[in-house]
Amino acid sequence: MNNTTMQAAFLKLKNNRFFELFVISIIIISALEIGAKTYELPDMVMDFTKLLDSFITLFFLIEITIRFIAEPEKKKFFKSGWNIFDTVVVAVSLIPINDSDMVLLARLVRIFRVLRMVSVIPELRILINSLIKALPPLGYVMLLMFIIFYIYAAIGSFLFEAINPVLWGNIAISMLTLFRVMTFEDWTDVQYETMEVYPFSWIFYLSFIFFTAFAFLNMVIGIVVSVMEKEQAKAQAEDNKDEPSISDLHREIQELKSMLIKLNKD
Amino acid sequence: MNNTTMQAAFLKLKNNRFFELFVISIIIISALEIGAKTYELPDMVMDFTKLLDSFITLFFLIEITIRFIAEPEKKKFFKSGWNIFDTVVVAVSLIPINDSDMVLLARLVRIFRVLRMVSVIPELRILINSLIKALPPLGYVMLLMFIIFYIYAAIGSFLFEAINPVLWGNIAISMLTLFRVMTFEDWTDVQYETMEVYPFSWIFYLSFIFFTAFAFLNMVIGIVVSVMEKEQAKAQAEDNKDEPSISDLHREIQELKSMLIKLNKD
Amino acid sequence: MNNTTMQAAFLKLKNNRFFELFVISIIIISALEIGAKTYELPDMVMDFTKLLDSFITLFFLIEITIRFIAEPEKKKFFKSGWNIFDTVVVAVSLIPINDSDMVLLARLVRIFRVLRMVSVIPELRILINSLIKALPPLGYVMLLMFIIFYIYAAIGSFLFEAINPVLWGNIAISMLTLFRVMTFEDWTDVQYETMEVYPFSWIFYLSFIFFTAFAFLNMVIGIVVSVMEKEQAKAQAEDNKDEPSISDLHREIQELKSMLIKLNKD
Amino acid sequence: MNNTTMQAAFLKLKNNRFFELFVISIIIISALEIGAKTYELPDMVMDFTKLLDSFITLFFLIEITIRFIAEPEKKKFFKSGWNIFDTVVVAVSLIPINDSDMVLLARLVRIFRVLRMVSVIPELRILINSLIKALPPLGYVMLLMFIIFYIYAAIGSFLFEAINPVLWGNIAISMLTLFRVMTFEDWTDVQYETMEVYPFSWIFYLSFIFFTAFAFLNMVIGIVVSVMEKEQAKAQAEDNKDEPSISDLHREIQELKSMLIKLNKD
Repeated sequence: MNNTTMQAAFLKLKNNRFFELFVISIIIISALEIGAKTYELPDMVMDFTKLLDSFITLFFLIEITIRFIAEPEKKKFFKSGWNIFDTVVVAVSLIPINDSDMVLLARLVRIFRVLRMVSVIPELRILINSLIKALPPLGYVMLLMFIIFYIYAAIGSFLFEAINPVLWGNIAISMLTLFRVMTFEDWTDVQYETMEVYPFSWIFYLSFIFFTAFAFLNMVIGIVVSVMEKEQAKAQAEDNKDEPSISDLHREIQELKSMLIKLNKD
Repeated sequence: MNNTTMQAAFLKLKNNRFFELFVISIIIISALEIGAKTYELPDMVMDFTKLLDSFITLFFLIEITIRFIAEPEKKKFFKSGWNIFDTVVVAVSLIPINDSDMVLLARLVRIFRVLRMVSVIPELRILINSLIKALPPLGYVMLLMFIIFYIYAAIGSFLFEAINPVLWGNIAISMLTLFRVMTFEDWTDVQYETMEVYPFSWIFYLSFIFFTAFAFLNMVIGIVVSVMEKEQAKAQAEDNKDEPSISDLHREIQELKSMLIKLNKD
Repeated sequence: MNNTTMQAAFLKLKNNRFFELFVISIIIISALEIGAKTYELPDMVMDFTKLLDSFITLFFLIEITIRFIAEPEKKKFFKSGWNIFDTVVVAVSLIPINDSDMVLLARLVRIFRVLRMVSVIPELRILINSLIKALPPLGYVMLLMFIIFYIYAAIGSFLFEAINPVLWGNIAISMLTLFRVMTFEDWTDVQYETMEVYPFSWIFYLSFIFFTAFAFLNMVIGIVVSVMEKEQAKAQAEDNKDEPSISDLHREIQELKSMLIKLNKD
Repeated sequence: MNNTTMQAAFLKLKNNRFFELFVISIIIISALEIGAKTYELPDMVMDFTKLLDSFITLFFLIEITIRFIAEPEKKKFFKSGWNIFDTVVVAVSLIPINDSDMVLLARLVRIFRVLRMVSVIPELRILINSLIKALPPLGYVMLLMFIIFYIYAAIGSFLFEAINPVLWGNIAISMLTLFRVMTFEDWTDVQYETMEVYPFSWIFYLSFIFFTAFAFLNMVIGIVVSVMEKEQAKAQAEDNKDEPSISDLHREIQELKSMLIKLNKD
């Protein structure tokens, strides 16, 4: 019973509007602290950031504990990807780092605290969830694009390795070079270099650009169409709530008919 | 009463088609003058532009006074953002500048007179208003994009500062560098430089490009969908004016039914 | 009478499928000739192209004469922009050019013969017409974009002229530089140069990119929406041909009702 | 009869889920082998890849034989473009190559085995088929774009050949340079070079960019509109299955009317 009242109290605290705003402010302060650390700071300020850091780590630990206790079914807590993410970020910050080599890693982990902004603001969480949902239907287009990249990288690697091993040394490097060509970043420099040996290698680049641009376009159109369809389906569903459908009319007219037939018979 | 007739007369003048065209011509002349000043001009012409400048300043002052007097409710005048904008532009031009350091500033203020074109032509005003209205629903996508930029800038600043402080010196500079990477502007130069120290830093760039491109795409689709929905809603509203809805039909059929039931009973 | 039979005969010839194909082939040969001239050719071939050139000029003259005679109402002939275009291209080719300075100009005029491809193939003519029709509704967006360019060019010219007169010398050069920035072409080079003197000049570039990108996006969406609306209107108009509208149903039900009322009264 | 049972057995094998997965795994192994060859490998591994290569060639030969035998109507087999593609890839791999000059060619042919991934996975086959179907309606836009390229390349070649023969040497090279300008790749370098001789040559580049961007936009919108129309037609067709159309209602109401007329007469 003691447990239940504590849980209820923590649930009330967790859902409190001011507590939410307080958590968001701490995340913003934590983000600003990370930003500030990229500037050269006087020693005094550095000492202060260390203190601030410990406070933020402690606060996040308390906050996640509150949320865990507030959860009625403890098993459900770790079913949410966002909760797991928050727990990992907090847990990793708790590991004491003395080794100077690890300072960089510790700093990097702290940066991911900023991502907690996404897990705290519901609108951002919805946005991310909808982005993730949009990915799977694009799976096959991405696979196709990967195959195009792989084939062109293999050809490029076989033909152009001798010309410029920095760009075409092996299939992985070639794929990176091809990504650069796809973003049109100094792609003619790459092209002119190989055209000196293989004058017809422009066919390689132009066909690659056409294929990837086309596949990319297809992907974009795919997303647009699916988003629009969902919007239309939603709009239609709302219409159906208010308005009778043509099927309803059909049924009613049928009833009228049977009544008239009855009248005729009388 | 004298006041009211003056207001009516000025309102008539303000709404006069020729007065409007005259105001637009003065704005165009003012724009051309600003453009002409960027060329090296003989002294005589320079003297003329000074004279022209004074005339334009005076004309704009008179024009805004006319519009202010023409307004029946003076309080309403400053509720329009466009009126405030016009007044500020005119007021700032009136400040006499003798100090040579301020000449540049005075010139810059005069440039904003060209923006008066937008406040005078109603079609442009509508366009700007609709652009401003399109922004708020994108707020969360922009916040998400800012978070992505911030995190990547922090990582970039921590890891790459030693490699090239000009590009990764602090979080603000890093964000500018990342904006450059997003526009694909010589982004491979930035990448190759860091890949010499961290061979796997291409993951940093590629993941950043994917995330921002995806978020940007989401933004564009968001605008397209909302614009289309508004258009469809408008089209549907117009349809409804002319045509009876399915609900109307439903009601009529119901009436028919009750009439038939009555007939059957008789 | 002789005149009318000639006109009828020429109209028949003009609409003949083989004559059309022959005209298209001559245009293609003329295009290939122009392309061939850009290569270094042996003298013999050059002499042949001169001959070919005279033949093509003559053929086009004959073809346009046939089309003119075939036209029943001569006044209408010059109301079509395509006919005027064809006549000008043919007329200019006829001017004898001996002056060596004019050779280049003569060559350039001949290139526009390739555009006759557009005037001959109806599908391309429709495409161009629809592109031209799509432009006017975009007029105000383009005006807005021009105003943005003009203001930024004026600011750029005033502030940055001393830094790099090649890029910011006057308002015209500045607008070209800004177009370059809009295409993201080495825009950071331009930016870093001015940032050395004005460290906050990145605001100038970033705000410009945002404004123009946004205006451009608005333009694209405008076209997409208007194209879609036309398609939907077309689709709906076709639907209406086959299917009775809801208004038709409404009218019929109304008739039913009046019949029932009559029945009830009896 | 023996033949038929064999065919049935092979058909069963071909449609077996595990056999399909096995074929896909072999293709993936073949792709990985091609990728691995682009790295420098120890001799032992190279010997292994040679063995692997022979095995894959043999396996693909067996697989296509099975599919050929499994086909009930042998004539139909070669009507599918995918079967022809598979057969050619296998046949070319079978040609024994000892000549060292041909080693490169042999390697290139093997790369196309990766494309067999597309022919094996039905979803990718559908994707490619739909991409191919989307192309023909764009034919005329592509022709128009080619005409624009051709005319600008001819003009560029005549005017700028003396300035930079590497970029404007002949009409083919000029078209490649213009493609570069269209992708905004260092296009200002090309422009500034010619502007030194012809100060107004920026008109050439800007008009080219406007025309191609506009034509490209038109193409994209064309695809989007046609894709959406198909989706809507599909959605409507599905609606029609479940719901009676307005025409159906019309017919029913007509029947009601005739019944009432009969009643009135009685």
